[in-house]
Amino acid sequence: MNTTHSACLAALQQRFGEQFSQGQSQREQHCHTTTWIKPQLPDAVVFARSTEDVQDLVKICAAHQCPIVPFGVGSSLEGQLNAPYGGISVDLSGMDQILEVHQADLAVTLQPGVTREALNHYLRDTGLFFPIDPGANASLGGMVATRASGTNAVRYGTIRENVLSLKVVTADGQLIRTSSRAKKSAAGYDLTHLMIGSEGTLGIITEITLKLHGIPEQITAGQCTFDSVTSACQAVAQVIQLGLPLARMELLDALQVKACNQYSGLNLPEMPLLLLEFHGSGTAVAEQVEMFSQIAMDHGGNAPVFAKSTEERNQLWKARHDAYWASRALRPGCQAHTTDACVPISRLAECVTQTQEDLEASGLIAPIVGHVGDGNFHALLLVDEQNPDELARAKAAVSRIAKRAIEMGGTCTGEHGVGQGKRDYLDLEHGAGVGLMQAIKRALDPNNLFNPGKL
Amino acid sequence: MNTTHSACLAALQQRFGEQFSQGQSQREQHCHTTTWIKPQLPDAVVFARSTEDVQDLVKICAAHQCPIVPFGVGSSLEGQLNAPYGGISVDLSGMDQILEVHQADLAVTLQPGVTREALNHYLRDTGLFFPIDPGANASLGGMVATRASGTNAVRYGTIRENVLSLKVVTADGQLIRTSSRAKKSAAGYDLTHLMIGSEGTLGIITEITLKLHGIPEQITAGQCTFDSVTSACQAVAQVIQLGLPLARMELLDALQVKACNQYSGLNLPEMPLLLLEFHGSGTAVAEQVEMFSQIAMDHGGNAPVFAKSTEERNQLWKARHDAYWASRALRPGCQAHTTDACVPISRLAECVTQTQEDLEASGLIAPIVGHVGDGNFHALLLVDEQNPDELARAKAAVSRIAKRAIEMGGTCTGEHGVGQGKRDYLDLEHGAGVGLMQAIKRALDPNNLFNPGKL
Repeated sequence: MNTTHSACLAALQQRFGEQFSQGQSQREQHCHTTTWIKPQLPDAVVFARSTEDVQDLVKICAAHQCPIVPFGVGSSLEGQLNAPYGGISVDLSGMDQILEVHQADLAVTLQPGVTREALNHYLRDTGLFFPIDPGANASLGGMVATRASGTNAVRYGTIRENVLSLKVVTADGQLIRTSSRAKKSAAGYDLTHLMIGSEGTLGIITEITLKLHGIPEQITAGQCTFDSVTSACQAVAQVIQLGLPLARMELLDALQVKACNQYSGLNLPEMPLLLLEFHGSGTAVAEQVEMFSQIAMDHGGNAPVFAKSTEERNQLWKARHDAYWASRALRPGCQAHTTDACVPISRLAECVTQTQEDLEASGLIAPIVGHVGDGNFHALLLVDEQNPDELARAKAAVSRIAKRAIEMGGTCTGEHGVGQGKRDYLDLEHGAGVGLMQAIKRALDPNNLFNPGKL
Repeated sequence: MNTTHSACLAALQQRFGEQFSQGQSQREQHCHTTTWIKPQLPDAVVFARSTEDVQDLVKICAAHQCPIVPFGVGSSLEGQLNAPYGGISVDLSGMDQILEVHQADLAVTLQPGVTREALNHYLRDTGLFFPIDPGANASLGGMVATRASGTNAVRYGTIRENVLSLKVVTADGQLIRTSSRAKKSAAGYDLTHLMIGSEGTLGIITEITLKLHGIPEQITAGQCTFDSVTSACQAVAQVIQLGLPLARMELLDALQVKACNQYSGLNLPEMPLLLLEFHGSGTAVAEQVEMFSQIAMDHGGNAPVFAKSTEERNQLWKARHDAYWASRALRPGCQAHTTDACVPISRLAECVTQTQEDLEASGLIAPIVGHVGDGNFHALLLVDEQNPDELARAKAAVSRIAKRAIEMGGTCTGEHGVGQGKRDYLDLEHGAGVGLMQAIKRALDPNNLFNPGKL
């Protein structure tokens, strides 16, 4: 325990009683990182149940200069939940109420601990759904904080395009609303987008109003094999350039398909594969399917195969969602080093191809999976950390992948965020812009209370 | 002339030579406000031709604590260009180069002085277009700075959803890039969205990378009459709720139609009217037209009438774009007081109806026109400012309209920005959020150099 925070802990214990824990296992659970990044434990965990809880917590911590690290469900990948300076992990998973469905406005207001699966389950009888789907059953607060996206972003945008308004507790314990529920606004600085992706470093999100979408009349899922990741990516680029509004276009390389087959008991062809989903009216989907098939075949792809039932479709996406764990099962006992390159679509094929060649030449085992419709893909390096040579090769490859994306006009992180894992690349990517970010941080959180040491 | 800035003016004269002007007519032209807001002249105008010009200007002005007001084409409506503390108007209209069309990425990089019409003219052979269309032939820098939208936002989003990256000169004269060209990113604070809508108060935009869209296979425009604005708005709300991706849905009340007929020599039926545009493949447009027609008739609308040629379609939208000047021609010599309410779509019919009743009861002449698909509409109050009683009634009505929108969960400004005209409503709309905005302003522009007295 960080003894400098002991007075703060005592005050929190008094205010929060059973919602406060200093137990070792709770502290460990609240900084598990799912990746190679080493855990750094908070001094205590507070389980918030209300906005008032969060405001009180912030005021107490502010008075004692004690750091606060927000926690949703713990599915982040870049060490966002670690507490390098100790302090309090504030667990928001208990703030899981859906406050109001604005059916006629295609919107919903909810607390940050609601998970995306819980939201869609709640909406099941409304004809509406929330499309952003990062794979993990993340909390919506966490998704907003890391600017998450996932498999549906091609058609529906990322979380950035789907938040109407936030309520946020600021560093002085005030509650602010970032904007109205109107669909657009030109009134003042865009606080909503400033908070999205700020990874808990500017404020704590306590309420979220999200856009919803009508469930499409028809949903058709399918798969399409190619002889190389290059040709698969070239086909994807053409789909985007022609403006085909596919909902999902996911690339899996042959190794990733093999991992999914083993983990999820499937029989997908073990070659470069696109998983697809088409949304729209019956005629619109038929048009999209026809155009996609033509494009795929023009790039040497095989004829797409379509799921015959909702069950088959769900099985396909379940396998895609489990890709992370499927990959890890390829080398039990090894650590996962993730990459998150995102480049302009015209550079995608080149970037994925070079990355695959680079990983092979480095002798690393690293399945590739990607939201390629957005130019975004992940290589998951499975690394035996007991082998210093392999670890060094892996770190060098991760660094090259981030730099390659930036050099191609892209970003080192399309959706996972910066956290601790990608901090080294911010200067390279943003140059003098980092100075502006630091100025904003100092202005809104002068005592560096919120999630210090991240982003 | 503000004598405290004389040393600055001398330094600028020396650096900029013929690009510098203290002439009365130039100073007047650079703060004309198109509305009731009284002009406040800058001390001088600098015509920037390059990013280096802007950086040098900022450094000289910063050294002398002299305000800078960015100028595009002068089409803003809320006094954004006024210079209440004197200083320099920096005219960016000469920075009008299109730097690169990223054809395969559906994007373009350009300077801020390019107008939206010039951009689309340049793109005419590429199969791509830029959809955001605020009516006026605004500069793209100005559109980004005010977070503009316009008639196509229903389908394509506002400028907020269509900027990939900006280059911005900051208060210390540094040039920063807000993000990469990748379609999505989770790397650091969202400086792009912070700059969009900041109305020249945080930095000067010197380069813009925009998303482009493929020109749809089919474009069909039409019009549909209703017996009241209420039923027209109810039909619009249902279109949105069903997720029909119409490109344009514009409301004109009977008085606005009359104004357009007179000004543009048309014969539109002088009753509440929706102007419509459908984009997509042939079959998609046919589907949309059929569904729209059914919805319109369910709400007592008449069967839509469609434009028979591209010329007829262009004539219709030209008339819509000229609606502002058409309205002003209804009462020559009077001033225009604009409103810009934007509410959740479920409250639109109620808000427009109450506004129309309010204006009638106040004895004011005020055509209504609106981007109703976004819940956004304008009443243009035509006011004889020599009549103090009428002026007082107009100001009271404008205030009620702004407050009504905020009370209905909306905003006082959907797209025109805050400028000087809407500053009074920011506290009401944002509450404690205004404190955050002020902190950001102080952090990024500590000497209040950029467009002081706005937003």
